[in-house]
Amino acid sequence: MNIILASPEEITASRIRLSDHRAEHIVKVLRSGPGDIVRFGIINGGRGKAKILDLKRKFPFSVELQVEIFEDMDRASPIDLVLALPRPIMLKRVLSQVSAMGVGTIHLIQANRVEKSFWKSSIVSGEEFLPHLLHGLEQAVATRVPKVVVHRHFRPFIEDFFPNIREQYGSLLLAHPDGGSSLQEGFTEKITPERVLLAIGPEGGWVDFEVKKFLEQGFTPCSIGERILKVDTAVIALHSRISLLLEQLSIQR
Amino acid sequence: MNIILASPEEITASRIRLSDHRAEHIVKVLRSGPGDIVRFGIINGGRGKAKILDLKRKFPFSVELQVEIFEDMDRASPIDLVLALPRPIMLKRVLSQVSAMGVGTIHLIQANRVEKSFWKSSIVSGEEFLPHLLHGLEQAVATRVPKVVVHRHFRPFIEDFFPNIREQYGSLLLAHPDGGSSLQEGFTEKITPERVLLAIGPEGGWVDFEVKKFLEQGFTPCSIGERILKVDTAVIALHSRISLLLEQLSIQR
Repeated sequence: MNIILASPEEITASRIRLSDHRAEHIVKVLRSGPGDIVRFGIINGGRGKAKILDLKRKFPFSVELQVEIFEDMDRASPIDLVLALPRPIMLKRVLSQVSAMGVGTIHLIQANRVEKSFWKSSIVSGEEFLPHLLHGLEQAVATRVPKVVVHRHFRPFIEDFFPNIREQYGSLLLAHPDGGSSLQEGFTEKITPERVLLAIGPEGGWVDFEVKKFLEQGFTPCSIGERILKVDTAVIALHSRISLLLEQLSIQR
Repeated sequence: MNIILASPEEITASRIRLSDHRAEHIVKVLRSGPGDIVRFGIINGGRGKAKILDLKRKFPFSVELQVEIFEDMDRASPIDLVLALPRPIMLKRVLSQVSAMGVGTIHLIQANRVEKSFWKSSIVSGEEFLPHLLHGLEQAVATRVPKVVVHRHFRPFIEDFFPNIREQYGSLLLAHPDGGSSLQEGFTEKITPERVLLAIGPEGGWVDFEVKKFLEQGFTPCSIGERILKVDTAVIALHSRISLLLEQLSIQR
């Protein structure tokens, strides 16, 4: 936890009292005392610092902070994700990691090779995404929370929902081992608008029908090499390469 | 497990009998039967396929295979790593993930912010790296095992050991949040030889003395942005960006 995050409702007259895992972190990990300064941010808001006014070192932990916000929210990421629902333990890690790296919206979708039981897990059925997203933001010193949208059926997603968001993207990439194109080839030179939608399949990959549907909608199948990567590794690897390509484009302009 | 790996000593006259987790995987996950074909590779050797001759479906599992090797080992990676020793659970994940992505040698080193207890963990004290490296190779359908070298003291590593390997590298990159340069700027345009050594610090980062020592040896401090990433995320993100930059250089040539 490299920044303490709180929602705006928790703050009154620039003061906040914490008594949960954030208080425990300040006491036990940071080992802070009264007068010390910690990084502080408002969820989906600005960033700054907070001064410790008062602190209870024993359980139940309690910390009172004086908050000062002087820095903007982190910039919106140009990358959105379509992710075939991974197994719950993997989903938690991926949500946290992409939240740390920066992502706009994550569309969790059904695919043929997604195990049905994954949809019944508490994280998905209860839409308990926020703690994992916040975990990533706390790591990355960011405050902008990615959106997560759940699509329980493949065809309604690709045929009905997707056409409505398509215009937002200058580049539509389908991660696919038999992709043929390298990521760079799949990346149009002058993408406008400068937003990328990246679709990543389940362990075992997309089935032919799904690939066909994505291609019909204008996606370019892309591969980053012969190696088969786990979903969490692949997401970071692709996100990193796309970020670098976008940075290179913005330097050229 | 996308490929069954075995050491050459296990194979006699193109046949091998498995009775460990590999046999269990063939029986329980792949649900293969006699006559079925599985991907097969020799550790630090070629790749091919194997035909199931005989199989015992109940515990203790047992599978006999007829092996045929017709494809080369995966190419050597141009990237080596210097990694401040992470906590054991993180180390296992990083070894597996970089092994899947492809890496030459991993130098695990001491740094000021490495907790001393990490050196006492069984994975480090017993040098039990191989299972985690193989796990990554089995995922990636690769056979070339990365080397792991342990350096328990920082100064002997950077002052005595490093100068002996320095000539191997065209580019020396130090991941450092205050790096100043972007990764691309830190990347010399015409690196010869085309090998990169990437140094990644502990959670909490390198201390000033360590940065000074790396810079004295010719490392360029590089950052991939303001966001603070966990070691496992940072390793994949940096490896991916460096791989893309190397691919771009090789296309230009």
